[in-house]
Amino acid sequence: MTVFEKIKADNYEQIIFCNDTKVGLKAIIAIHNSALGPATGGCRMWDYKNESEALTDVLRLSKGMTYKASISNLPLGGGKSIIIGDSASKTPQMLKRFGEFVETLKGHYITAKDVGIDSSDLKTIKSKTSHILGIAGETNSSGDPSPVTAWGVYNGILASAEHAFGAKSLKNIRVALQGLGAVNYHLLKYLHQDGAIVTGSDINQEAIKRAQAEFGISIVSPDEIYDVDAEIFSPGALGAIINEQTIPRLKCKVIAGAANNQLATEKDGDVLLKKGIFYAPDYAINAGGLINIYHEREGYNRDKAYAHVAKIYDTIKLVLERSKAEKCSTNIVANKIAEDRVSEAELARA
Amino acid sequence: MTVFEKIKADNYEQIIFCNDTKVGLKAIIAIHNSALGPATGGCRMWDYKNESEALTDVLRLSKGMTYKASISNLPLGGGKSIIIGDSASKTPQMLKRFGEFVETLKGHYITAKDVGIDSSDLKTIKSKTSHILGIAGETNSSGDPSPVTAWGVYNGILASAEHAFGAKSLKNIRVALQGLGAVNYHLLKYLHQDGAIVTGSDINQEAIKRAQAEFGISIVSPDEIYDVDAEIFSPGALGAIINEQTIPRLKCKVIAGAANNQLATEKDGDVLLKKGIFYAPDYAINAGGLINIYHEREGYNRDKAYAHVAKIYDTIKLVLERSKAEKCSTNIVANKIAEDRVSEAELARA
Repeated sequence: MTVFEKIKADNYEQIIFCNDTKVGLKAIIAIHNSALGPATGGCRMWDYKNESEALTDVLRLSKGMTYKASISNLPLGGGKSIIIGDSASKTPQMLKRFGEFVETLKGHYITAKDVGIDSSDLKTIKSKTSHILGIAGETNSSGDPSPVTAWGVYNGILASAEHAFGAKSLKNIRVALQGLGAVNYHLLKYLHQDGAIVTGSDINQEAIKRAQAEFGISIVSPDEIYDVDAEIFSPGALGAIINEQTIPRLKCKVIAGAANNQLATEKDGDVLLKKGIFYAPDYAINAGGLINIYHEREGYNRDKAYAHVAKIYDTIKLVLERSKAEKCSTNIVANKIAEDRVSEAELARA
Repeated sequence: MTVFEKIKADNYEQIIFCNDTKVGLKAIIAIHNSALGPATGGCRMWDYKNESEALTDVLRLSKGMTYKASISNLPLGGGKSIIIGDSASKTPQMLKRFGEFVETLKGHYITAKDVGIDSSDLKTIKSKTSHILGIAGETNSSGDPSPVTAWGVYNGILASAEHAFGAKSLKNIRVALQGLGAVNYHLLKYLHQDGAIVTGSDINQEAIKRAQAEFGISIVSPDEIYDVDAEIFSPGALGAIINEQTIPRLKCKVIAGAANNQLATEKDGDVLLKKGIFYAPDYAINAGGLINIYHEREGYNRDKAYAHVAKIYDTIKLVLERSKAEKCSTNIVANKIAEDRVSEAELARA
């Protein structure tokens, strides 16, 4: 498939191939949509098999950012970038050149971290462009994204629990927590403080020990987490774990967690709707990291950022209520809301 | 071939695919090199057979602009853009959207006219971007490019004649002029004023009549122009007319004219060198249009622009002298000078 064939159906705006043969840089910046604001999304470095695979990945990721920014009501568009190559092979020259290419867009695209690009890489990139967000440890930095992502997920869980069974708090609410890593460790603090009854799972024994020691939670094996008798299932590890196999096993009324791409297919959302399970769309509930780095643009203030992230409560409420009113799955409702906001901005731009 | 495969060898910097499915716009902006300054080059609209053909064309054209700007000592890089489609199918919406895409680069690419895009189209594009040059009839416009291109070619002819046979003027110098169209009509004015003896050819009878009526020149058939007994052959119509078939027929000492891509292959330059024919490289001698629109950037002043274009004399002199000193064909010498200037700027940037 040619580039235009790949981008036509989803109406991507700009795909920017960036090359410096001398320093060995091959990068692609994808701008899916910039109607709501500058296209924002991290830079991933990955050893793609070929250019086609790389392009497909950056397209998919940038489109996801359009939806995440829009559903979060941020004045940001959807973008993403990739550097083709094993991240072990990266050099300061490559990263600086990448920064120069980002700078040529003068803020039309804003970069950040992603797989294969760490904070020290971001600092190197930042030496060549100011259009970068999320550098840990810098002045005006929004810091580690995990705690604030957990804060957003927690607020989305509150909204879901209230909508699903009128809960005004999580006290004595049973939560099955898939994954006890970076984000869910912080989520666990909030759940524990509220008096929720948590059963967790992880493949990492260190993470399990920490959760048990600090919060005294019950543990099941990674496969058993789907069978736990709980009001809330909170996926925070793998993608595509809501699927034909797992849905019949779930006993929960609410699915609300931090993981990306939770549904195996969009149709699984319909199955959940019919089953009476309230699903908080992943890209809406886990947008805390994006909302948080957005605040670097105005001079980072933690209190303002956290208050903004807490609005994920309202976002999830809106989605659940429209889902109920329209008898439409929450994932499709979220998409519609996000798309409508983009369309409105496009009309305003035209 | 993939995009990166196509751009690697000639080290193109950025290839920007621009798409708006709703208005039916498919455009590619190619930035070959921006070390010397913002990548500058016109926008062509053409009904390409496929995307690959379109990409190949915009790459070739943008690289040519790097060389043209560099040999002319302009602080501009090489860029070009194409809109895919029959120019009869263009709409204001497409052109405006194209302007918005140019604007996202904030001056990293500067557009202008080319085949399929006329002055009224440029005005539509200009409603969305200020990074545009060469709009006829506007305030600060550099106007019709033909007279100033002729002025540059005339100065290049003077330099070539002086270098080849010590001529201090063109009085009584015989010139075979291929093409009597827009640029060469104006060139003819300068030649006529100097007292040159011109033999012309064209396929257009109107152009022939005008040249005969105004300047009383001799006319030969289009094929006979290669056999004219003249000191100077000035191609100003077709490309690739210096080739294996025509070189043995040429009786001139100098080839200096306005046409693009005069040599069929770079090796034809070597043949000319060995034959003792002084060839003024096409992209250096016909750069008057580019130099002229460059002056719009600083507030257009015709006298300053024409004085700058007159420096094509120095450029052609430099190329001819280095060609003699290095026993290297003028086309290759021009490429080297252009490439060295780019390399120096790249070093300064790094």
